[in-house]
Amino acid sequence: MSPTARTTPTRGRHRVVTDREQLHALLEDALLAHLGVVVGDHPLVLPVAFGVDLAGPDAGGSLYLHASVAAGWLDRAAGADVCVTVTELDGLVTGRSAFHHSMNYRCAVVVGRARLVTAEDERLRALDLVVDHMVPGRAATLRPSTRKELAATAVLAVPLAEASMKARAGGPGDDPDDVATGTWGGHVPLRWVAGPPVPDADCSTPVPADVLARAAALR
Amino acid sequence: MSPTARTTPTRGRHRVVTDREQLHALLEDALLAHLGVVVGDHPLVLPVAFGVDLAGPDAGGSLYLHASVAAGWLDRAAGADVCVTVTELDGLVTGRSAFHHSMNYRCAVVVGRARLVTAEDERLRALDLVVDHMVPGRAATLRPSTRKELAATAVLAVPLAEASMKARAGGPGDDPDDVATGTWGGHVPLRWVAGPPVPDADCSTPVPADVLARAAALR
Repeated sequence: MSPTARTTPTRGRHRVVTDREQLHALLEDALLAHLGVVVGDHPLVLPVAFGVDLAGPDAGGSLYLHASVAAGWLDRAAGADVCVTVTELDGLVTGRSAFHHSMNYRCAVVVGRARLVTAEDERLRALDLVVDHMVPGRAATLRPSTRKELAATAVLAVPLAEASMKARAGGPGDDPDDVATGTWGGHVPLRWVAGPPVPDADCSTPVPADVLARAAALR
Repeated sequence: MSPTARTTPTRGRHRVVTDREQLHALLEDALLAHLGVVVGDHPLVLPVAFGVDLAGPDAGGSLYLHASVAAGWLDRAAGADVCVTVTELDGLVTGRSAFHHSMNYRCAVVVGRARLVTAEDERLRALDLVVDHMVPGRAATLRPSTRKELAATAVLAVPLAEASMKARAGGPGDDPDDVATGTWGGHVPLRWVAGPPVPDADCSTPVPADVLARAAALR
């Protein structure tokens, strides 16, 4: 992890994760990122799918986002400093006081200059990575994208170099006085689960192995 | 919903939800928000707990956030325009082409001037709302916060007036040509589940009803 002033948490330092492998594991696990862009006089935060290439051309590896070329925020993001935050909520921390209520989570914050990817081979690779991030192995099973589809899609790369990660796990950090009263304290674990894949109504072929495996991994 | 230019989606208009009750329902369901703040030369996006008071003093109702008074971003948020985005991921859309892969989700984007709450009664009420948002009914079961705890906690209110919501559900919007090939297409539903509450090791009292109910609601 190579934190700069922009990605050095100002508090909760005991929750900072400095191991880059944990950052990479979180990025592999999480399905959703939140992209922050400055639009005019205010920040805008939008949910986005993403892909990761740790051997990508950007410092620290490349985080890839895709967007419609018609997306209003695209012009504000390309070439600008953006923030990509990936959070997995792992539980609710139900302390013995309001003050010690908290959440268990893993969170990566990446700040970097977003680069509009123009080289066709990198664009194709990035789009495959975004699909494979959702369902590992899926890109190779699909027909090639058409020229029209590719022309409608923009790809942004954000360097992973400037990143920080925080994580919290376990029960509340309650005051000893509150623990001594015998009041209950603990936490409620949370996780994603997938239901069985839902085929389209007009679909008579069996569910592909990659989709079954994706759902099975979240069971 | 009273969208302004700042909260009018530039594309995907068919996914825009204009019913304010659906926005309110999403805010009630979701446990986590992502707060966007402009810090110096870049946006910063952080995961935050939140509470909602639809009858709060801000236009459209009040969304409340809390923070340590030591949080580095607090000074940049108080009095500034921020973005609070709440996203629930409902599924992976596994289309017959890369282009028609997507996600099912409900997402609210709120842009507004963050107000540092200073009146003590509103602060106390907001902190109760944040705790009750995690575990409904829990605030009333806890001891009152101490003066020291309250002095360490900042509360921000964001008006809910300027908001937009988008949602997607169901299977892929595949091209008829791809459907005709017989290739499989569909979606994978995703949802949160809670595990059984985990009491602290030193805890001999039974799990309180509010915590049990919270976990049971996510089963």
